[in-house]
Amino acid sequence: MKELFGSPGTKSGLVLRIGQSLFAASSIGIMASASGFSTTTAFCYLIASMGLQFLWSFGLACIDVHALKFNKDLHNQIIVSLFVVGDWVTATLSLAASCSSAGVAVLFTKDTDICKVETNFSCNMFQISIAFAFASWSLLAVSSYVMFWLLASI
Amino acid sequence: MKELFGSPGTKSGLVLRIGQSLFAASSIGIMASASGFSTTTAFCYLIASMGLQFLWSFGLACIDVHALKFNKDLHNQIIVSLFVVGDWVTATLSLAASCSSAGVAVLFTKDTDICKVETNFSCNMFQISIAFAFASWSLLAVSSYVMFWLLASI
Repeated sequence: MKELFGSPGTKSGLVLRIGQSLFAASSIGIMASASGFSTTTAFCYLIASMGLQFLWSFGLACIDVHALKFNKDLHNQIIVSLFVVGDWVTATLSLAASCSSAGVAVLFTKDTDICKVETNFSCNMFQISIAFAFASWSLLAVSSYVMFWLLASI
Repeated sequence: MKELFGSPGTKSGLVLRIGQSLFAASSIGIMASASGFSTTTAFCYLIASMGLQFLWSFGLACIDVHALKFNKDLHNQIIVSLFVVGDWVTATLSLAASCSSAGVAVLFTKDTDICKVETNFSCNMFQISIAFAFASWSLLAVSSYVMFWLLASI
C-alpha cells in the first residue's frame, strides 16, 4: 500500500483534518456573531453545513490521532469506503452552502444596495465567514480526492 | 478493461452526455427568457456556467458518437485524464452556479417578498431554470465519478 499525501492515519491527513475543523469552526463563529444573518436561509444553511463539516473533520482528526498513537493501519476497504462516502457528502453540502451564501452576499453588496441601506447587516462578516467556508471546503476537497483515489487503488 | 456504465465511447456514456447537454441548454433558454435575470450576478453566472457545460458535454457526445461509429477505444490514460479534469472543473462550476442561484431564488421567494413586490421578475422561471441546472449537474456528477474511477483503475 503506497503512502499517499493526506491518507487516513498519517500526519498529513491529520493536518488536513485539523485545518478543515478550524476553518469550519471559524466560519460558524463569525457568521453566528454577525447581526442579521438569521433573516437569510442561505446563511443559516451555511452554519448548519459547517457544523456538520466540523463534526465530521474533528471526528476523523481524533481517529487519525488514535491511529498515529497506536500505529494502526486504516487502509482497509471498509474504513476507506466509509470515509469516501462521508467526505463526498460533506464536501458537496459544504460547497453548496458556501456558493449559495456567496450568491446572496454578492446580491447584497454588488447587485443591490442592501448593505448600504440596512445598517444592521454585518456584510463584511458575512464575506469573511464565507471565505473561511470556502477554505474549509477546499481542504476537504483534497481529502475527498485522496480518499477516492485510495479506494479505487485498494 | 472492464466496461463501466457511462464510460467514454459507450452507449450509456452517450446517453449521459446528451442528457447533460439537453438539461444545460434548457436551463440557459429558460433563464435567458425570464425577465429581470440580468440584475442578479448569480443568474448571469448560471447562464455562463451552463453554456460551458453545454459545450463540454455536447463535444464529448460528438466524440462518443464518433467512437461508437468507428468502433474506437477511448480507454487510454491520456484521454481519460483529460476527460477527468474537464468533467471535474465543469461539475464544480455547475454546482457552484446552481447553488448560488438557488440561494438567491430562496431569498427572493421565501426570505423576502421581492417576488411579490417586483412584478417584472419571472420568479417561477428562475426556479425552473435552476432545477434544470441541478438535473444537468447530477448527470455530470455521475460521469465525473465514472471517469475518476476509470482513471484510478487504468
